[in-house]
Amino acid sequence: MKTVKIAILGLGTVGGGTYEILRMNKELIEKRTGIDFRLVRVLEKNKARMEQLGIDPYIAVTDPDMIFKDPSIDIVVEALGGIEPSSTFMEKALLAGKGVVTPNKAAVAASFARLKEAEAKGGGRLRFEACVGGGIPALTAIQEALAGNEFTEVMGIVNGTTNYILTKMTEEGLPYDDVLKDAQAKGFAEQDPTADVEGIDAANKLSILMTLCFDKYVHPDDIPRVGISGITMADIEDARSKGCKIKLIAGAKRVKADDGTETVEYSVKPTLIPFSHPLAGVSNEFNAIYVTGNAVNELMFYGKGAGALPTGSAMVGDIIAIAKTL
Amino acid sequence: MKTVKIAILGLGTVGGGTYEILRMNKELIEKRTGIDFRLVRVLEKNKARMEQLGIDPYIAVTDPDMIFKDPSIDIVVEALGGIEPSSTFMEKALLAGKGVVTPNKAAVAASFARLKEAEAKGGGRLRFEACVGGGIPALTAIQEALAGNEFTEVMGIVNGTTNYILTKMTEEGLPYDDVLKDAQAKGFAEQDPTADVEGIDAANKLSILMTLCFDKYVHPDDIPRVGISGITMADIEDARSKGCKIKLIAGAKRVKADDGTETVEYSVKPTLIPFSHPLAGVSNEFNAIYVTGNAVNELMFYGKGAGALPTGSAMVGDIIAIAKTL
Repeated sequence: MKTVKIAILGLGTVGGGTYEILRMNKELIEKRTGIDFRLVRVLEKNKARMEQLGIDPYIAVTDPDMIFKDPSIDIVVEALGGIEPSSTFMEKALLAGKGVVTPNKAAVAASFARLKEAEAKGGGRLRFEACVGGGIPALTAIQEALAGNEFTEVMGIVNGTTNYILTKMTEEGLPYDDVLKDAQAKGFAEQDPTADVEGIDAANKLSILMTLCFDKYVHPDDIPRVGISGITMADIEDARSKGCKIKLIAGAKRVKADDGTETVEYSVKPTLIPFSHPLAGVSNEFNAIYVTGNAVNELMFYGKGAGALPTGSAMVGDIIAIAKTL
Repeated sequence: MKTVKIAILGLGTVGGGTYEILRMNKELIEKRTGIDFRLVRVLEKNKARMEQLGIDPYIAVTDPDMIFKDPSIDIVVEALGGIEPSSTFMEKALLAGKGVVTPNKAAVAASFARLKEAEAKGGGRLRFEACVGGGIPALTAIQEALAGNEFTEVMGIVNGTTNYILTKMTEEGLPYDDVLKDAQAKGFAEQDPTADVEGIDAANKLSILMTLCFDKYVHPDDIPRVGISGITMADIEDARSKGCKIKLIAGAKRVKADDGTETVEYSVKPTLIPFSHPLAGVSNEFNAIYVTGNAVNELMFYGKGAGALPTGSAMVGDIIAIAKTL
């Protein structure tokens, strides 16, 4: 049986979830792929976390270069979060010819060109399915199974926190501040919710979707954003009276100008979605990506946009895809 | 640029749609893949159809062995329909080491073992994304991006004709016979609708889904089936009073017996789906595949289950996937 050696940078929610799946479904994955995946290094200081996951602290390192410079390591799982040093770490791994798998949408969106360059130069391979929609395998589908399509539009409910808040406001008639406090108490929203409620997280994901669908890179900071913190119960009621729900949509579409030239319009903003549209049925913390292609027509991918195991599922899918090419 | 040579058996709806996409999106596909896909042979007698599609009748053959025995042909698109001679044709192509792409659920479901054997023996590669859910890339996702999951349940609305009929009965209050006649007049249902309304088509698709999700092959004839021809308006109203819609569900799930042994339960039958379930929002001719995995949790794939271009989208995705490995 082929052995593929893995290093994980950061054993937080997603790093830990990825390891848990590789362990929990080890036999099944070996049977399906013929590959024995072995965790050989972790970049992690938290001994208690390693113990909790059943990882031998002996494999922990504090110097990431011990991972990038180790030719026996095939795949690096970058699960630290934040733009830096994650981008630099991924770049180093790719330049060393390693596979890199990440859920880090902020780093991928901000550093896309740099990472693609490192991929081309070093021969490593970057996969980032988990960056958009957690466990939903939309990015792989857009790049592979749907590769015969010219995409005309992509719309995503790609932030679970805001979708949870808007769902509670709509279904239970509770004002924004109350729902946010409740979500924070339940751990569904961060203590500083800015990145979620102001659409910053969604803009990172839209930047990635646009790159894949339209081959057009826009830095997340350059995507016009309106968050949900200004949404009132009057807005929710007004939408309802028009047969719509308000959803935070990260959307982009091709538009043809009068002179025939094509551009892509894009934004993150609260949007009226008719009750009859499939996106209106995406509630609570669920995510969905809705794409339109000139061959396939309309498609929707729906599922859990966050969480250790759902996001880990996307990570493991990427790990397997890279391992098959080794 | 790499050239990949294709032969299409049958220029009906899907065979023609596949060719149309390869032509319509040629430039884009070349840019994305670096591959020039060339149609070099068709098995087709209908000259008018070739003319309609802009295919030079010079490349048509009447003897399929001229395709299987031609070493220059890389990929065979089987789009004839029916179990035979399609299964034998696919077998021959696989034994000759060619890639085979098909939307033929009846042939794949009935001849699965034989086709896998030919694949292993001849070195060809079979892909059949278009067999379930038309353009929806669920089969590829189940086998690739979700390969880290143990699947616990799969439920599909995989027949557009029956979903259209049930939707009209539910939304417009029209009885089965009237809706069927209307669907036949509009071309949404066959003149002999048996394969659709009695769940035979859905059973073919469930056989394929079970093989992929549970590594368990059940011949379509051995799947218990109840069709929709016995559904009355009283049934629809009764479901509504319980907060449900009736959907024809092709479903299978793992169940644990009291003694700890695991089995898979499976059937095609009209099923009550609560309004709040995402499958309840799948209306008219749309299809959806709803899978549950032990890592990813619940996922739904939604889209057009039929039609020349949507189904052709899945075919072209498979053609590209095989071509990349050549």
